[in-house]
Amino acid sequence: MDGLLRDISAPGRLAVAGEGISEEELQLAARNHGLPLEALRYDVTPPGLHYTLVHYDIPYADPADWRLTVGGRVRTPLTLDLAALAALPSVTQRVTMECAGNGRARLVPRPVSQPWLVEAVGTAEWTGVALRGLLAEAGVEPDAVDVVFTGADHGVERGIEQDYRRSLPLAVATAEDPEVLVAHRMNGDPLPPQHGFPVRLVVPGWYGMAHVKWLREITVADAPYTGFQQEVAYRLRREPDEPGAPVTRIAPRALMIPPGFPDFMSRCRVVRPGTLGLEGRAWSGHAPVTAVEVSTDGGRTWHAAELEPQDDRHGWAWRRWRASWTAVPGRHVLSARAADAAGNTQPLTQPWNRGGFANNLVQRIDVLCVQETGATSRTPAE
Amino acid sequence: MDGLLRDISAPGRLAVAGEGISEEELQLAARNHGLPLEALRYDVTPPGLHYTLVHYDIPYADPADWRLTVGGRVRTPLTLDLAALAALPSVTQRVTMECAGNGRARLVPRPVSQPWLVEAVGTAEWTGVALRGLLAEAGVEPDAVDVVFTGADHGVERGIEQDYRRSLPLAVATAEDPEVLVAHRMNGDPLPPQHGFPVRLVVPGWYGMAHVKWLREITVADAPYTGFQQEVAYRLRREPDEPGAPVTRIAPRALMIPPGFPDFMSRCRVVRPGTLGLEGRAWSGHAPVTAVEVSTDGGRTWHAAELEPQDDRHGWAWRRWRASWTAVPGRHVLSARAADAAGNTQPLTQPWNRGGFANNLVQRIDVLCVQETGATSRTPAE
Repeated sequence: MDGLLRDISAPGRLAVAGEGISEEELQLAARNHGLPLEALRYDVTPPGLHYTLVHYDIPYADPADWRLTVGGRVRTPLTLDLAALAALPSVTQRVTMECAGNGRARLVPRPVSQPWLVEAVGTAEWTGVALRGLLAEAGVEPDAVDVVFTGADHGVERGIEQDYRRSLPLAVATAEDPEVLVAHRMNGDPLPPQHGFPVRLVVPGWYGMAHVKWLREITVADAPYTGFQQEVAYRLRREPDEPGAPVTRIAPRALMIPPGFPDFMSRCRVVRPGTLGLEGRAWSGHAPVTAVEVSTDGGRTWHAAELEPQDDRHGWAWRRWRASWTAVPGRHVLSARAADAAGNTQPLTQPWNRGGFANNLVQRIDVLCVQETGATSRTPAE
Repeated sequence: MDGLLRDISAPGRLAVAGEGISEEELQLAARNHGLPLEALRYDVTPPGLHYTLVHYDIPYADPADWRLTVGGRVRTPLTLDLAALAALPSVTQRVTMECAGNGRARLVPRPVSQPWLVEAVGTAEWTGVALRGLLAEAGVEPDAVDVVFTGADHGVERGIEQDYRRSLPLAVATAEDPEVLVAHRMNGDPLPPQHGFPVRLVVPGWYGMAHVKWLREITVADAPYTGFQQEVAYRLRREPDEPGAPVTRIAPRALMIPPGFPDFMSRCRVVRPGTLGLEGRAWSGHAPVTAVEVSTDGGRTWHAAELEPQDDRHGWAWRRWRASWTAVPGRHVLSARAADAAGNTQPLTQPWNRGGFANNLVQRIDVLCVQETGATSRTPAE
């Protein structure tokens, strides 16, 4: 018996009505992980809590052998080892990164892929070399239009064998703000393997698919790149055959730290009656967040939250917000929604696309307020 | 409307035939995560790749305020701050830790809980104070039988509000080997929040539920502890009403690094024809691993793998094994199984229990061997 790639690499599909999460989706959910929402308390996400999404395997990189090349439509192709990269002037940027598929698992019908609920986000301090500086050193030819980034992660997707590869228009790749980084440190340390060791791209304000990890090649091209991750995946489509618009910048989103404490299985929150502080973070890849509103009645009424002042240096990172709530006994649904300076907001009903991309439907947190909980488990000594 | 805990905190249940993974299970899978199996290559798991399972929320700990108490049936109760704990003589142990529920999601019927497939494992170097030293300093009373450990994580589980709390028999708590640690460093650094910052218990050879994180209280008791996590959860039961045996030490397991490269969605592996190296790790909490066997034909035939020599200091850590395989075109199923010096092995058909605990059914890896893959995605410059 021979085997064919199409037997193990099917086209994308939508879940049928009532279909539970499949074992294929669970395999991805068990490998990749989101930000536990209580970790929204940290300005910079501690290692291991930042979301991670890896298409294929995490490649093993020997730092002594690693080379980053800059080639294609340039006057002087470059080959840099890690020492050469680390010796170049570096900049550090605090950047909130979100997976383009965040929220996918709650869509109806559900696109079958990595089944994120709402937690595929994190914020880190990325240190690296400005991409525009590297490109200037190589000397971009006048006919260049696109810059293609190749990672070391290799696999098959929808029948296509590939290295993970994405492009940016030249104007985005060479912009001053956001400044694209060829990053080699995360929160002051070398990149963890799952975040792209030893080198990755960081494109502030863009969804995660643009931040190519395990970066090996930068190729300047005289035509728009049309590879799989650019033209097949990461497009906003309602029908399978339409070309669709590319997924680019992060739509605004606010997330709340779930208050009180959880039930293990339902994750419903339990709080006591009285006034409690609510807090969370909000971000947008289009423009600064200008407002966050909170609802404690399932979205019927909304109240302005207080936005914490934000350092200008952290314009591509999430912003903290706070509100207060007087809980009374019973069941409640809490939500928050963000708006940005460009007029983007979070929808209350979800525009749907086949990839489940750029979904920013408002979060809903189930809360039970109780006076006493009755049975508790105590040590013999208490 | 008032709300009751029982409305949000249901008894345990089994999935019905054909029931997909539920949203409740997915919520746990999105927060917690396993070891991506390619990370089996590392002797010590890098930060963020070690599995993590948190019952409630990750509690926030201010290191300046943290106190660990040793009380109950002791002559001299102790209260230690972090500086006092760090000043005590410390030991470092390399320990493989595995979640007691690893493999649960493949059981039929499936216990509805954290839906692990096979990846809930990791190995770290834990540094801390020997528990038996702390107990000796406090002076255990002659009537003591159990030692109870209380974490700062608080939640509701099956209707019971609780701090996470587990016990060890006094003889286990004070043993020389395995030596139980009150650990404050992981791989040389302070504990990450999700691994118990600032202090956790480490019980080499035992499943993860024993390694109480965010440890606040150690209470010596003159009667066996009967709290929720000891008597209700973490028991091996076939019927809901039987008392069941407690879950304790880790059953042997071998895992293989999936060879070749994956398809994104099916995770089926793709390899080229020819001879390739297979490698993985094996461990047991009962006794040293003495043999690993590999099958490349779906379990029909088995061949001995080569066990790498293991440093005596790392007796509670996994052991590397290697084998080779000559792949021919077609579909294949690869497996590995471990045996330990106490005669424990991995079953080919799974004994089942309602909690899905201590499951060590052999791993199965689907592999497609192909000559050429046809379509590939390349940069314009190639």
